[in-house]
Amino acid sequence: MFDLNPYLAQKQALINGFLLNALQSEPADSRIVQAMTYSLMAGGKRLRPVLCLAASEAVGGSAESLLGVAAAIEMIHTYSLIHDDLPAMDDDRLRRGKPTCHVQFDEATAILAGDALVTLAFQMLSIVTGQTPPQRQLEVIRIVSQAAGYQGMIGGQMMDMESEGKPLTLEELKRLQAMKTGALIEASTRTGAILGGGTPDQIQRLEVYARNIGLAFQVRDDILNIEGDPEIMGKATGTDGDRKKSTFPSRIGLNESKTYAENLVHDALHALEVFDNKADPLRGIAHYIIDRKK
Amino acid sequence: MFDLNPYLAQKQALINGFLLNALQSEPADSRIVQAMTYSLMAGGKRLRPVLCLAASEAVGGSAESLLGVAAAIEMIHTYSLIHDDLPAMDDDRLRRGKPTCHVQFDEATAILAGDALVTLAFQMLSIVTGQTPPQRQLEVIRIVSQAAGYQGMIGGQMMDMESEGKPLTLEELKRLQAMKTGALIEASTRTGAILGGGTPDQIQRLEVYARNIGLAFQVRDDILNIEGDPEIMGKATGTDGDRKKSTFPSRIGLNESKTYAENLVHDALHALEVFDNKADPLRGIAHYIIDRKK
Repeated sequence: MFDLNPYLAQKQALINGFLLNALQSEPADSRIVQAMTYSLMAGGKRLRPVLCLAASEAVGGSAESLLGVAAAIEMIHTYSLIHDDLPAMDDDRLRRGKPTCHVQFDEATAILAGDALVTLAFQMLSIVTGQTPPQRQLEVIRIVSQAAGYQGMIGGQMMDMESEGKPLTLEELKRLQAMKTGALIEASTRTGAILGGGTPDQIQRLEVYARNIGLAFQVRDDILNIEGDPEIMGKATGTDGDRKKSTFPSRIGLNESKTYAENLVHDALHALEVFDNKADPLRGIAHYIIDRKK
Repeated sequence: MFDLNPYLAQKQALINGFLLNALQSEPADSRIVQAMTYSLMAGGKRLRPVLCLAASEAVGGSAESLLGVAAAIEMIHTYSLIHDDLPAMDDDRLRRGKPTCHVQFDEATAILAGDALVTLAFQMLSIVTGQTPPQRQLEVIRIVSQAAGYQGMIGGQMMDMESEGKPLTLEELKRLQAMKTGALIEASTRTGAILGGGTPDQIQRLEVYARNIGLAFQVRDDILNIEGDPEIMGKATGTDGDRKKSTFPSRIGLNESKTYAENLVHDALHALEVFDNKADPLRGIAHYIIDRKK
């Protein structure tokens, strides 16, 4: 039986080491680097970079050679959290149990730290290591930038802002979440599969896997916002209801949402059936996504 | 005698056409695309993309094949203006004679429109056209991301925010401006020179040219903030004094600043001496930078 926890711990340590190293080239007294480091090292789950590494391993590729790409994806994720937390956006003061970036520093620094992280991410993706053909590296930049952009993550956040107080249909909600959360999760998995040398069929199956766990992740997030423990989660709960946000529980009910998340994970696991035990970490992550308490 | 105006008009038309086209893939009722288009098409001088095209031509390369790169650089410049204008940053309400993005739309939309433009820029830089070897394309992404990042433009804006009310030495002021304005101007010229097929010596000379006109551009900006016509400039003047910002006139005096800008342009032109008349547009731009009224 595969045990996900040591796998996650080992990969998180690799990713954290790489991220810290990437920011250590600058004098530590630089306020912008302090803010970037603060948010980047605030104890995230590293779901996206782990997915990238695990997808590579699932198709027989290495994890270590992808650390730069995985770290870049985590930088993009962190930048999106910093900007989403801003007063003009979701106005969140707590994230991962710590003051959000604009609370710890100030608004201007938070905006610039986010800007700096997304830019550094693309700088890292452009570094030629000799391990990847340049065409493939350009393809990775294209995939990640598209997923992060206005047709993906940013477009989803925009829809989310515009829909506050306006009920969405279930289809609109799925589309919003596919853009806001799903796009970068899919991109993480897909780039891992491509860089790991996956066949077109393997890449396509891993995309199906990622699409399903990405949506399950968001459904679980909505459930945790209702019945999660704020202490474990490190952030306030009940906020979706306060903001009258459309969520899966508000659309289809709490119990239906749980069943829906389970079905999505079932579909994700089904897409992995042709893979051998090298895909066990991906299977473990799929289970983790609906079992997690934070 | 070379006439810069028709050259500028022709290049600006090419760039504007390309930019509009890049944003037309999406439904026009999308608020984020509206905000991106609003700021991108607000009538900028297109200095950076024109420099990119002109540098390519100066080394015997084409301009048209570089339009994607030039447009991406203008997107990065526009995103930086949108974010710098935000209430938490410079709190400017007027830009290029029009309400700034957050005034015309709202703060959240302005933050996201900026985020979307920088991300779209890297997406455009990653598109494989077949006209450029992939390694060289990756090099361009690396140059542009580094110039735009915390070691360049963003770091300069951070220094600028931190220095308000604190007088800088002339050397600190030069370093700030080299990062805030100079880095992207240099990157524009350098990528043009590289993609145009310049020799190492040509590329190095064009870097010297760019470094000098970049600084001259900022000195002229500071001068215009004192004696410019707000109607011609489309934005308020006298703001640097109000904010007690360190500027070249506040450091070395108004007349010394004018002489300094002229010396910088002289050095820029000197770096172009080995080039033939294909570098005339670059020479014209150097003169334009200290003659401009806006």
